[in-house]
Amino acid sequence: MIRVAIAGATGYTGAELVKLITGHKEAKLAAVTSQSYSGRAIQEIFPAMRGVVDLVCEPLDINAISQRVDCVFLALPHKVSMGYAPQFIENKVKVVDLSADFRFQNASAYEAAYQEHSAKSLLNEAVYGLCELYRDKIAGSNLVGNPGCYPTSVLLPLVPLVRKGLVETCGIISDSKSGVSGAGRAPSLGSHFCEVNESFKPYKIGNHRHVPEMEEVISLEANEPVSITFVPHLLPLTRGMLSTIYARVTTGTTQSMIRTALMDQYDSDTFVRVLPQGEFPDIRHVRGTNFCDIGFHLDPGSGQLILVSAIDNLLKGAAGQAVQNMNILFGLEEQTGLELFPGAL
Amino acid sequence: MIRVAIAGATGYTGAELVKLITGHKEAKLAAVTSQSYSGRAIQEIFPAMRGVVDLVCEPLDINAISQRVDCVFLALPHKVSMGYAPQFIENKVKVVDLSADFRFQNASAYEAAYQEHSAKSLLNEAVYGLCELYRDKIAGSNLVGNPGCYPTSVLLPLVPLVRKGLVETCGIISDSKSGVSGAGRAPSLGSHFCEVNESFKPYKIGNHRHVPEMEEVISLEANEPVSITFVPHLLPLTRGMLSTIYARVTTGTTQSMIRTALMDQYDSDTFVRVLPQGEFPDIRHVRGTNFCDIGFHLDPGSGQLILVSAIDNLLKGAAGQAVQNMNILFGLEEQTGLELFPGAL
Amino acid sequence: MIRVAIAGATGYTGAELVKLITGHKEAKLAAVTSQSYSGRAIQEIFPAMRGVVDLVCEPLDINAISQRVDCVFLALPHKVSMGYAPQFIENKVKVVDLSADFRFQNASAYEAAYQEHSAKSLLNEAVYGLCELYRDKIAGSNLVGNPGCYPTSVLLPLVPLVRKGLVETCGIISDSKSGVSGAGRAPSLGSHFCEVNESFKPYKIGNHRHVPEMEEVISLEANEPVSITFVPHLLPLTRGMLSTIYARVTTGTTQSMIRTALMDQYDSDTFVRVLPQGEFPDIRHVRGTNFCDIGFHLDPGSGQLILVSAIDNLLKGAAGQAVQNMNILFGLEEQTGLELFPGAL
Amino acid sequence: MIRVAIAGATGYTGAELVKLITGHKEAKLAAVTSQSYSGRAIQEIFPAMRGVVDLVCEPLDINAISQRVDCVFLALPHKVSMGYAPQFIENKVKVVDLSADFRFQNASAYEAAYQEHSAKSLLNEAVYGLCELYRDKIAGSNLVGNPGCYPTSVLLPLVPLVRKGLVETCGIISDSKSGVSGAGRAPSLGSHFCEVNESFKPYKIGNHRHVPEMEEVISLEANEPVSITFVPHLLPLTRGMLSTIYARVTTGTTQSMIRTALMDQYDSDTFVRVLPQGEFPDIRHVRGTNFCDIGFHLDPGSGQLILVSAIDNLLKGAAGQAVQNMNILFGLEEQTGLELFPGAL
Repeated sequence: MIRVAIAGATGYTGAELVKLITGHKEAKLAAVTSQSYSGRAIQEIFPAMRGVVDLVCEPLDINAISQRVDCVFLALPHKVSMGYAPQFIENKVKVVDLSADFRFQNASAYEAAYQEHSAKSLLNEAVYGLCELYRDKIAGSNLVGNPGCYPTSVLLPLVPLVRKGLVETCGIISDSKSGVSGAGRAPSLGSHFCEVNESFKPYKIGNHRHVPEMEEVISLEANEPVSITFVPHLLPLTRGMLSTIYARVTTGTTQSMIRTALMDQYDSDTFVRVLPQGEFPDIRHVRGTNFCDIGFHLDPGSGQLILVSAIDNLLKGAAGQAVQNMNILFGLEEQTGLELFPGAL
Repeated sequence: MIRVAIAGATGYTGAELVKLITGHKEAKLAAVTSQSYSGRAIQEIFPAMRGVVDLVCEPLDINAISQRVDCVFLALPHKVSMGYAPQFIENKVKVVDLSADFRFQNASAYEAAYQEHSAKSLLNEAVYGLCELYRDKIAGSNLVGNPGCYPTSVLLPLVPLVRKGLVETCGIISDSKSGVSGAGRAPSLGSHFCEVNESFKPYKIGNHRHVPEMEEVISLEANEPVSITFVPHLLPLTRGMLSTIYARVTTGTTQSMIRTALMDQYDSDTFVRVLPQGEFPDIRHVRGTNFCDIGFHLDPGSGQLILVSAIDNLLKGAAGQAVQNMNILFGLEEQTGLELFPGAL
Repeated sequence: MIRVAIAGATGYTGAELVKLITGHKEAKLAAVTSQSYSGRAIQEIFPAMRGVVDLVCEPLDINAISQRVDCVFLALPHKVSMGYAPQFIENKVKVVDLSADFRFQNASAYEAAYQEHSAKSLLNEAVYGLCELYRDKIAGSNLVGNPGCYPTSVLLPLVPLVRKGLVETCGIISDSKSGVSGAGRAPSLGSHFCEVNESFKPYKIGNHRHVPEMEEVISLEANEPVSITFVPHLLPLTRGMLSTIYARVTTGTTQSMIRTALMDQYDSDTFVRVLPQGEFPDIRHVRGTNFCDIGFHLDPGSGQLILVSAIDNLLKGAAGQAVQNMNILFGLEEQTGLELFPGAL
Repeated sequence: MIRVAIAGATGYTGAELVKLITGHKEAKLAAVTSQSYSGRAIQEIFPAMRGVVDLVCEPLDINAISQRVDCVFLALPHKVSMGYAPQFIENKVKVVDLSADFRFQNASAYEAAYQEHSAKSLLNEAVYGLCELYRDKIAGSNLVGNPGCYPTSVLLPLVPLVRKGLVETCGIISDSKSGVSGAGRAPSLGSHFCEVNESFKPYKIGNHRHVPEMEEVISLEANEPVSITFVPHLLPLTRGMLSTIYARVTTGTTQSMIRTALMDQYDSDTFVRVLPQGEFPDIRHVRGTNFCDIGFHLDPGSGQLILVSAIDNLLKGAAGQAVQNMNILFGLEEQTGLELFPGAL
């Protein structure tokens, strides 16, 4: 039984982790921390969990918690995570960090997008936790930088094609759309019901922090610097993310080559579903699950490829993938605790 | 391993049953039937289930199916169910009927609200499947009339108080609100997105068919004829139901007597949660679960009692309670297959 | 041309007033004030109004503004309004106050529900601005207490029946449901999209401040103290309010007497629509308009009357009625500036 | 006073026309037709319009109606319109057709996307009713093909840049998102509330009928055949449309040249708003209005241009533009009847 702590349990991602670990048959939730709700019971903060979760939030005391757990999820803001991770690792607690702090190999890229990094020496040790693509590296690691939601939705369909040279690395565009839970639980005018409901808009065009994260991964896979045009949009729904990705195929690439590349990559993976030709993802079909659905359309005349992917931003885009990473770290079946059965509604 | 058939698997309730039985560790989904989709795979009809459910819809051939299953869920329209149930029972297949056909003891009450009943002789055998209140009778039965969603939300809070004579049986009002999935999957102007979204309205005031169902149960419990004023409303959300029930307490009834009556009834039940004083149910806290949350407020001056209950209309209000009934019929733990962990969102 | 100021123009109610006055052919928007956005242009705060409204928010300087306007709308928080109203009145500026500060005749009732009243002497002068019922008094006044949204939806259907003695004043219940804009524009966890979307719940059971407001009006109309049981609920939609009101008719009262009482009261009023027998209001049918739709059902056996009313909480429930009050104050046609044509969607 | 008929008044577009013409001070609604609701009153079909619209639907008798009107809006399905338009024109009634039947100059392009055209001779007479770009031609016409909603949202931002040679005509992509009302009022599984709510998906990738419509216009403006990659998506909201358009600028094109081109085109137009640099459209800001908001971002390094436009699909994308066309046809101010004031919500 893996003993688990969740640091930052009262945000939406933290709450998803609480839910997943409570239902995980080989893990036990040993501690939950919260700065703002310290001393209060989880079921008081999230009344939905009444009678199911019986833990009280505590302050984040690294050493005390290290003695009680084997693994910690850091569901904390950027910058905060890097202050806690080194000590947990020293205490032999494996860390899955859901902030951006350990997603970059290149410290300057991180610092350009975020702020000064105070634990640069760990960047070499940290592994980028995109499970289906990097599970071998993850397995031997102690520190996983859990990918951003947008990068997960963009990289899963794209990387297998980049690896095989099937798409031009120049001119890739991702038009992405996210539900509101991606913005977190802290109230703001931007997440006010009346401002989002019956609304739809792009945001942070040209300067979203997930761009350098995607670009670093794609560039490493392509062995050349790759730039991506990325436009995120806010959907009037709670959870789910869909990316429509536009790329040009390289000369000679056919529809069946695209399909083969995706199938070769994902055929034995539970959580990535490559849809039949002519079918495309719908957020509704992955909501509440750890699936990433992928569909595509190639216009043979122009060589324009349209890739579409859908994930639940809180699961495959955050807490679900984090648990999948924990499973890999501890040698469990990847789908353990993630048997989230999809329904019609 | 209980072998299960779902008749009418492609409606919303049927799809929930498919989901629940697939995840049920002591039941196996052996057959799914559909009139309109016969010959088509479930995962084609519900792409969310791709890779998870591998069954093809077949026509409803009672004898053929009876040989392969121990239990059948009839998720069929009223009137249709009563045509199939008798033969299944004769074939020693236990039946959980989700239509109204076997919810009434009194055939004339049924016939006044619905239509002529063609299997009246079974009404005596049939048990009303409100699990927490009638589990003893259900356990010994072969035919369960699974309660309507509105009656479930009204009877669970009300019956314990009626049994103890704590409320006046005259003048009870239920102002109830349901999500759109309660109207089923068949397209109609009334379920068109644009007609429901940003909308709210009452419907069928004075003639909803769930009224005689509630009144029969309450009257039996009260040992006198009880009339209920019932106003259902349509909420612009997919799943969930909340009833706000108004009753006058009998002389001498106090808040703590109400609380004691509810706690005595439900304290050992997993699925009914009586909330602490001053807290009230929210559809969001029970959505996707088999819970019924109950809260109440008593105005001591006027003796006006306000009971509030919330359920997921497709689960505790339909498929979830149906599985709970199956568990009782076959002597399993009631919560088996219903471990639907509630989350923050 | 009436020159108008809106104090507190950047809340949702204030913004509706800006919209209405801009479109009002006999009024001119001369000043908008805001504490938090002082110095910023309206079209910067509300980009929807770009190119249409060309005003900049200013601080609330009573004397300066008094010289430029004939009428001021106070769309300010309770307690704040009472600090400004007296000086405006002294400056001969007519005041329509949208807070609760001038809705009560009885200062102690106000103080029990809100806080100490610092301008009690004005309570006698102030008129309760429920236009259809009190337009004669309003016409001669300088200070109108614009009614709360819930009281508007409850009093319009109920008062004509109380006046004629058609309903018992004991045991009246209003089960009311409001859209989220009623909670204002300030961000809070309770108005976070993810907390409201796909959710429904009652709130403030037993202690909502609109109860004493309704009770004072009903009691005055009934010439006896009347208590109302009131349960407000939060709907997952932006604008609209529906009240389902339960009352017992007095002996001898028939359906046609109810209808006659409502028609007699409202037949010549543009904004109150009494629906044909068997039809009931839908929030969608009044959204974006100043209408109040009313329907009812009387169960002749039990004498139980069900009244249903629907309004747009920001219009007939706030800004629309405020403009209607201004029209009355200045002798204009009541519907001027309120020709908000209802559409199918 | 222009006398107007609306053929097909009971769809969502027809209902918008009813609303707009009722509020139009220089037009009078003289006839409404409906196949399915013939003989029934508009206010019975759309209860929101009770007390405001007093017309009864009649069958579409061309000659009878021609005697009573100066202008007819054909809000009919494709193929049906072309059967009625010729006779109306012969009867000297000006026609604004909201179907696709008269949007194409090239009959084969129409026939490839739709079906055989039975009134080809009129295609030369018909004018494409994109008001801001073709108002001079429209003014002298008798038959206007009112543009599709998607083409309106794509062409308004794009054409001014194509005209000035600022963007490469190769590789243009439009990632477009529409509310559900675009699919019409007829019930279908695809417009069922539960299938759309909390959902988001692309549809008709590679074969949407609006593509040839856009391509014909762009090609004519560019004087060369232009192909567009177009991916429409369905948003979980009732009304509104946003297109995110990707194009490469031609060598030497700067941000200020883009801005100048857009401003030169639209500066004197009421309904197209070019937003300040760094601001982007939001569906919420144009909902319920005839505006088209346009924003853009140019990445100077890569030359990648991102254009974003937002319209209300039922107004600027259908009925609003149709009324604007009528105003042009009859020499009225373009904004007459379209003074739809935008609000905060």
